[in-house]
Amino acid sequence: MADAEKPQCKVILANNIAKTLLEEVHTGLQKISHKPKLVGFLSSTDPAARVYAEWTRKTCTENGFDFELREIDREALEDAILDANVSPDVDGILVYYPIFGSGQDQYLQQLVSIDKDVEGLSHQYISNMYHNIRFLDEHQTKKSILPCTPLAVLKILEYLRIYNMILPYGNRLHGRTITVINRSEVVGRPLAALLANDGASVYSVDISDVQLFTRGGGLRKRRHDVHEKPGWTLKDCLPISDVVISGVPGDKYKVPIELLKEGAVCINFSSEKNFAPEVKEKASIYVPSIGKVTIVVLLRNLLVSGVIHGVEVGD
Amino acid sequence: MADAEKPQCKVILANNIAKTLLEEVHTGLQKISHKPKLVGFLSSTDPAARVYAEWTRKTCTENGFDFELREIDREALEDAILDANVSPDVDGILVYYPIFGSGQDQYLQQLVSIDKDVEGLSHQYISNMYHNIRFLDEHQTKKSILPCTPLAVLKILEYLRIYNMILPYGNRLHGRTITVINRSEVVGRPLAALLANDGASVYSVDISDVQLFTRGGGLRKRRHDVHEKPGWTLKDCLPISDVVISGVPGDKYKVPIELLKEGAVCINFSSEKNFAPEVKEKASIYVPSIGKVTIVVLLRNLLVSGVIHGVEVGD
Repeated sequence: MADAEKPQCKVILANNIAKTLLEEVHTGLQKISHKPKLVGFLSSTDPAARVYAEWTRKTCTENGFDFELREIDREALEDAILDANVSPDVDGILVYYPIFGSGQDQYLQQLVSIDKDVEGLSHQYISNMYHNIRFLDEHQTKKSILPCTPLAVLKILEYLRIYNMILPYGNRLHGRTITVINRSEVVGRPLAALLANDGASVYSVDISDVQLFTRGGGLRKRRHDVHEKPGWTLKDCLPISDVVISGVPGDKYKVPIELLKEGAVCINFSSEKNFAPEVKEKASIYVPSIGKVTIVVLLRNLLVSGVIHGVEVGD
Repeated sequence: MADAEKPQCKVILANNIAKTLLEEVHTGLQKISHKPKLVGFLSSTDPAARVYAEWTRKTCTENGFDFELREIDREALEDAILDANVSPDVDGILVYYPIFGSGQDQYLQQLVSIDKDVEGLSHQYISNMYHNIRFLDEHQTKKSILPCTPLAVLKILEYLRIYNMILPYGNRLHGRTITVINRSEVVGRPLAALLANDGASVYSVDISDVQLFTRGGGLRKRRHDVHEKPGWTLKDCLPISDVVISGVPGDKYKVPIELLKEGAVCINFSSEKNFAPEVKEKASIYVPSIGKVTIVVLLRNLLVSGVIHGVEVGD
């Protein structure tokens, strides 16, 4: 029968990808003397924030980390973050957004001390990421952390063998065309830049326009280049994309399945479902959510943070 | 005639307020050896940004400062800012927003080197402002700059004698009730906090809610307190406000004149007119725009910046 011959879409759950990453974390954890402690600040009224908080607790406690959730009135959050910044028993700080849903959230983000920022959202981290700078210091002792969610997507693409290990490091996405739907500062834009830095052609799609990110040829800074694509829409990007990564907030947005290339790899990083179930009739691989991988990436960062604080306390 | 007896509204133009502040700037300028240079970056397509750029040029050159406008494609702006950060002949950097109109604008803002940030928008400046910290360093040699537009409003309120000089410093708005319409991170929220720190009761009104800012009683940090006012709207704030300061972007918004207290002081900091002409039938003082004061405040910051760089080069 013709139908039986059509290759089936493989649905890959974040949990399975997370498992392999967790092994790395366990190995690292055995090398340090204290249990790293993560403090989560919940001031958001968004139910998705609470779900994420509970996931964090579960993943932390199941994997040998301490977790404390502090539910704080949003007006008291600023002082609470400043306290945690200087508290020696806190290794990492995680703030659940949105809180004010305005520029005030970015202000709060920047208050978190850089050496406790396990989300990798400090301006210095983001700026280093865009400029492909891997360390915070000249002597290359302190790694510059990458923002969690974009890094989780990279780890997923590695797991899915979209990164081709035959190619040299830094060029393992060469030849890949990827569409990223969403250009937020927290996920979409950094993700597009990271993918471009690894050699992919990346269409970054936002409500207002399409931009093409490619690896920069600049000598001074090995950063990505951005080319505006006037008049372009998803109609132009999706049919030529090997990988489609979507993270539009809210439950209304759906990626137009009919525009997808046959056999595309589809990844959803929205807390809602950006792909309708019919995606399975078109895609070769579909990853319906990435949250569980994001949390493990966060634990990796917490481990780095725990090592730093352990040295300060122990030596 | 009854009409003749009704006191007339005094319309005060920013230009007149700017003049007195400029004298201070001229005195300061005579004390330093080089002409401070401001570089403006124009990547915005907003016509108001170009107008503001031309105003900056005019004010700079008329008052003994150097000004250079660099019109840069927005994709090249990041590198251009980083270049200006390390260029010894640049004393101050001013970026005209909006550019991307998204979180990317905040990212760019934070790229400007703190000692060339004449707008006072660096996270460290803003965070110091909220916590009433006046210096960047322990030895109190480097002043922490206040964001330009909020500071311009404060200078206007001083000029208008709303600040009562009889009262002790830090409490000169005691007894004043002020409504600020707009709670952006760039102007509205810092302005409300500054006014509260000086003793006023400030209703901060945003599209979603009303918050009351008052001076904090905390011992550790002398910052303002914020109280949510559930259910409150302009109907509740305006009739009890001595001063109404409005900065809603766009030309559609108008402050409801009928709700104003008789004899209120009205200040517009939007680039459009938030007050209809009838405001003059209700207000005692009306300041239709503040841009010219903002630019002088910026020159004051540039002067501080020029002093710092002059010392570095000369000594």
